[in-house]
This record gives sequence, C-alpha cells and structure tokens, in this order.
Amino acid sequence: MRTQVAIVGAGPSGLLLGQLLSLQGIDNVIIERKSGDYVLSRIRAGVLEQGMVAMLEDARVAQRLHRDGLVHDGFSLAFDGRRHRIDLKGLTGGKTVTVYGQTEVTHDLMAARAAIGATTIYEADDVALHDFDGQSPRITFVKDGVSHAIECDFIAGCDGFHGVSRRSLPDGAVREFERIYPFGWLGLLADVPPAAHELVYASSDRGFALCSMRSMTRSRYYVQVSLEEKVEDWSDQRFFDELRRRLPADVAEAVTTGASIEKSIAPLRSFVAEPMRFGRLFLAGDAAHIVPPTGAKGLNLAASDIHYLSQGLIEHYRDKSDAGLDAYSNRALARIWKAERFSWWMTSLLHHFPANTPFEQRMQRAEFDYIATSPIGSTGVAENYVGLPY
Amino acid sequence: MRTQVAIVGAGPSGLLLGQLLSLQGIDNVIIERKSGDYVLSRIRAGVLEQGMVAMLEDARVAQRLHRDGLVHDGFSLAFDGRRHRIDLKGLTGGKTVTVYGQTEVTHDLMAARAAIGATTIYEADDVALHDFDGQSPRITFVKDGVSHAIECDFIAGCDGFHGVSRRSLPDGAVREFERIYPFGWLGLLADVPPAAHELVYASSDRGFALCSMRSMTRSRYYVQVSLEEKVEDWSDQRFFDELRRRLPADVAEAVTTGASIEKSIAPLRSFVAEPMRFGRLFLAGDAAHIVPPTGAKGLNLAASDIHYLSQGLIEHYRDKSDAGLDAYSNRALARIWKAERFSWWMTSLLHHFPANTPFEQRMQRAEFDYIATSPIGSTGVAENYVGLPY
Repeated sequence: MRTQVAIVGAGPSGLLLGQLLSLQGIDNVIIERKSGDYVLSRIRAGVLEQGMVAMLEDARVAQRLHRDGLVHDGFSLAFDGRRHRIDLKGLTGGKTVTVYGQTEVTHDLMAARAAIGATTIYEADDVALHDFDGQSPRITFVKDGVSHAIECDFIAGCDGFHGVSRRSLPDGAVREFERIYPFGWLGLLADVPPAAHELVYASSDRGFALCSMRSMTRSRYYVQVSLEEKVEDWSDQRFFDELRRRLPADVAEAVTTGASIEKSIAPLRSFVAEPMRFGRLFLAGDAAHIVPPTGAKGLNLAASDIHYLSQGLIEHYRDKSDAGLDAYSNRALARIWKAERFSWWMTSLLHHFPANTPFEQRMQRAEFDYIATSPIGSTGVAENYVGLPY
Repeated sequence: MRTQVAIVGAGPSGLLLGQLLSLQGIDNVIIERKSGDYVLSRIRAGVLEQGMVAMLEDARVAQRLHRDGLVHDGFSLAFDGRRHRIDLKGLTGGKTVTVYGQTEVTHDLMAARAAIGATTIYEADDVALHDFDGQSPRITFVKDGVSHAIECDFIAGCDGFHGVSRRSLPDGAVREFERIYPFGWLGLLADVPPAAHELVYASSDRGFALCSMRSMTRSRYYVQVSLEEKVEDWSDQRFFDELRRRLPADVAEAVTTGASIEKSIAPLRSFVAEPMRFGRLFLAGDAAHIVPPTGAKGLNLAASDIHYLSQGLIEHYRDKSDAGLDAYSNRALARIWKAERFSWWMTSLLHHFPANTPFEQRMQRAEFDYIATSPIGSTGVAENYVGLPY
C-alpha cells in the first residue's frame, strides 16, 4: 500500500489532520491500534477554544457542534468560598469557548472521514515506524494476523502519550520535560443538569473541585484526590458530598445528584518532548505533550499542532515549499510552552499541594485576590483561557 | 514625657509618619536606637511608586526629589540575552516610577522634621514597649545612661524587621509567613554613569543580574550569588566581569566600570506578620513584612502602610472616629499580600533556583515569552510595578 501521509492514531488529532488533508486532495491513511468503538468510548475534555472551532468549520465538521455545543461567555474561579467570574467575552473583545465533548468531535470527524471514503485501519497490531530519517518512510503492522506495509512521504505521529511514534525515536533524539503533580482528579459523569451555566473552578482547604458539563442535561464533576485513592472507595454519595463541601455555597446548593455513568481517577502531568520533527516524522498532540486538565488546553493544543502541521503539508504538496514543515516544530512549541505555562499556573493556583508552606498557600490566595480585583489580571486569565492566537 | 503618638524607629516609615502627623498638629516623638548618621548611611532601595511620590508631596518633602529624582517611563526584562521593555507609562495610562535613593528620602524627611522642631531621640538604648494592650501605652528607654519614659495614646512600630516592636508582642499574637530564598544579591555602588537609562532586570543561565542607578552619575548593580559567597572574594573586576556575562550584549557593552563605593551581600526573604495592630500598637513597614528586592516594593510598601496608618490617626484626633485605625491592619495587609505576590513572582521568574527541574526552568522562559508577546501580560507587570492603588 502507498499513501502520501500515513497518520498513526485515530483520535481527534489524527482524524482532524486526515480530514484537512483529504479536503485538499492529499491522500492519507490512518492506522489505529484500537477499534473505532473503543476510541469513541474514551471520555475526555470538552471545552473548545474559538480557534479550534474555526478549524472544525474549515474541516466542514462543525454542523452538529454549532447545533449542540454550548457557547460559554465566561467561567468562574472560586477561592475559599469567594467567587470571581472571568468574563471571557467582555475581556477578550468577543471571544468565547464552546462546550462540546471530545467524544462528539471524534464522532463527527469519523463520520466525515467515512463520507469522504478515506482509509482508516482499526485494530492494527504491532505498528512499527521505519526509515523516517530517509526519503521513503514506511509503516508496518499486522491486521487480522496478516502483515502489511504502507509506504508514504510523511508520517504524522498522532498516537498519544503512550503511542509508538515517540517511542520509535532513537535514544537522545528528544529532550523530555516533565512534572508529575502529587494528586489526581476523580471525575464523575452523570445525566443531571449542571450546577451552574458556566464552569466553576474552585479551590478550597479540602482541595480543588470543578463543575463542568457536556450539555444542559449531562454534568461532569471533579474533585482533587490523593494518588492513593481508589475509585471503589468513592460511592456517588461520597463524591457529591465531598464536591459540595469544596464549592461556594450557592453553587453547592445547585448541585443535582444522580447516578454516575462513569467515574475514574486521572493523574495530572505536564510533559513536553522537543523537537517535534525528525526527518519525515512529525509528532502532534499528546504524542509530544501533555498538560494537566486545569484550563482545558489538551485537546485545543492538539488542534493547534494540526493547524501548523496541516498547513506545512498542504504547502509542501500545493506550493512545493517545505518552509511550513521546516518551521513546524518551533511554531508548535512556541504555542505549546505558553499553554503549558497557563495549565501549570492554573493547576498551581487552585490545588492543595501537600508540601506547600503557609507562605505558599498565601501566595495562592494573593494571586486569586489580584485577579479578582484587577481587570488586567482577569484579562490575562481570559486571553489564555480562550486560547492565544495561532 | 508625654506625646500623642510615640514612633519607634527613625527610618523612612517613622519619619514620614511623624511628618504627616506633625503637619496635622498631632504631637509625636520618634525614638531611634541608632544615630542619625548611622540611619543615613544605610544604602537601600531607590525606586519610588507614584503613590509614594504623592505622599512625599503631601508631606511637603518632595522639592529635592522633583529636582534630582529621575522619572522612569519603563524598564526592561531580559531573558537569556533577549530584552523586552515594559512601557510603564504607555501601559498604565501615564504612570511612572521615580529613581531617588532611600537615603535621600530619609535625608529630606530628617531636614523637614528638624525645621518643624519635632522631637527625635537618637541613640536610645534598651527601648521597651509597655501596656499597649490597655489605654495608656508607654515606652521606656535609656539615653546617655539615664532612664526615661514616654506616655502616649498610640505606639507606631516602625523599627524594621529586627526591631523591638514586633518582638514585644506576646507569644501567639502574630502569625508569621516566611520564605527564605536560596541565594543572595551581591550589590555594588559606583560613581559611574549607568549602563542604561532605565533599569534592566536580567535572567541568564549564570543567574540574575540587575542594572539600577541612583542618578545619572551613580550606578547600582547586583548579581545573584549563593549564600556561601563572601564579599572579600569579589574584586570590583570580578564583579563587573560576572555582571556583563549575565546581561544582554548591548547592555553589557555599555557598562562603565569604576571603583566601588560600597559592596555587600544581602539575603532575599519574603515575610509577613499578621495582624499589624495589637491594642494601641501598630506595626508598619519592615517591622511587619519583608519582600525580596526584585521589583523594588519594600520602601513603597512601608509608605502605603504609613498612608493607611496616618489617615487612621488623623481621623482619630480630628474626626473622633476610630474607623480608620480599626481597618488599618486589614487595609494594609490586602495591599501587602499583593506586593508580596508580585515580588515573589518576579523573584521566581528571574533567578536561577538550584533545585528547579528542567520543566520549571522552561516555565520561567515561557512566562517571559508570554509577557514579551502579550500586551496584557506586559500590562499586568506594569500595573504591579508602578504600584497597585492604595
């Protein structure tokens, strides 16, 4: 088999890249280790920056998003029961975010890919990347017990943090930067109306909590827990009791409890691998970087990588110019580091860190007080939250 | 002896308070452990916020400041050789800072106090504070071997971090918050023209450096050093060589070397004691809080304390209202914590921290990049640097 761009991973990064390339007539094949149903079953983020919404429009997959997505003009920060609204729209000259689950984005992209008739190979075993440091890269895999090879011009590694793409690089090819946070998020999804119309990120002396949502009938809540906690020890009742204790009174009162559809604990990690290009292999999304979920930057960063990468590939085929591909790693990383900073900052602001001294706890409070009393402080939060320009 | 307000400490806080009270006809006495010459010999900060300049005008001691002080419309941040100017005036709607040494402020306040004929008792030994939890506070001291007592309505503790005032409080009366930084500043004063017309705060892989000044013919330079360093090991030549290595090339080239007038190593500390009022004793300035020098907030914070305290005392005597005195601690602390935050943030941004991980080092760089590319990010720095409103 031969294609122009072989894409490893059928998550939102890979699917979006495939769609943007297909629309320009650039042949591409996606190779995915799991099944399509498995990919769709992963519950992930759900807050899209305006830049990502524009990309989904360009990719012609924004119809359902515009019908079902919830446009949010702001969100709240809360600290020890005090609440401060960040007026995203007012502070950024009209920018907003859209609440629309990653699962839905993936679903829309899969449907568009099926309609276009582009190839996705699911349940590909033993995926291996070859010769990407030369002119003729190749991917091999096993499907239903039979070995296959795909020859291509470029490989896009969109296969996530644990994927094969980054692990295929020779020793010393990447420099990795990492921070593991000393806690996790216990998340609960339930078909109940959300406690507030906008997201509420709350810091309390019991730890962090987040009121989020997927729709006006499906809520997503989180509480910070220690990494030793087990999901089995958290009944829905215990979860909602703990959630309420961490929220400002008016929000706590508005929480509607209900049976959980899903409940899980996720660790928090900051991670960046540099550079993001190796010959004809390009890493994008979680394959190259992870942010903690505070601030909802993970999916949006994957989209901005795909923005730079798709432009580079389109320029290569359409304009015979490699300038965009040569600039890809630096362009993507400049934006990634700023989003890493914001996610790290927002995580540092709102969580209870067991090792923090009383002085450091007061620095968290002073930071909140500065934001709550300074329009400039609030605008800084807002411009990062809606997404810095591509 | 009897007075209305007994002030402990003849540094700028105590002198400014005395001056503002004297101008309102409120009797006050200053008790100082050292001599006037000693107080004037202390070399300290030299960047005044506009709010402090306005206070010095109100105190009628701003004539020489307006003649000799240098109004600065901006300053530079530098990171690994890249330089970004913070346009204070442009970003804050016209606010500036004034470079005028603390020694000069003290000198002007001493001269004004002498002209008014208010009492300052220098070289007072064994200063002790009594009965400030009751209606009749009292200060005792020994002067030239003779014991004295001053009865008063209120005591203002303006005697610095190591002074007797805070140490006079009963156990458990204050809660203290502290951070000691793992480095110091080696400072050098020389009668040479400054390398740049504005201050340059520079981060480099060799550590922090600061180009500051007292006038267009007197420069003040600093380099971050480990706490184990000894001044004796730093010749002027070694200092200037190290300074230049940490500065952006254009600034390094413009450094004029010259014999040091003064050279010393100062530790960096963040410290806050809460509350700042105990019965009829009020703490102000360094007696209650310390900031690291990055951002030049120490003297300015002392001035804002004196703003709130002098207003409270004037309201007490003129309007028979204790509202201002009752609100003093909370008002002062609200502003102090924000300045503590800014000083801690700027220190964290620009210094080399031996324990920082590579990820944390990248967070410093990403913070600089955000500020350098976002007008909002720069405005946040600017509004804090010129001083948040009283």
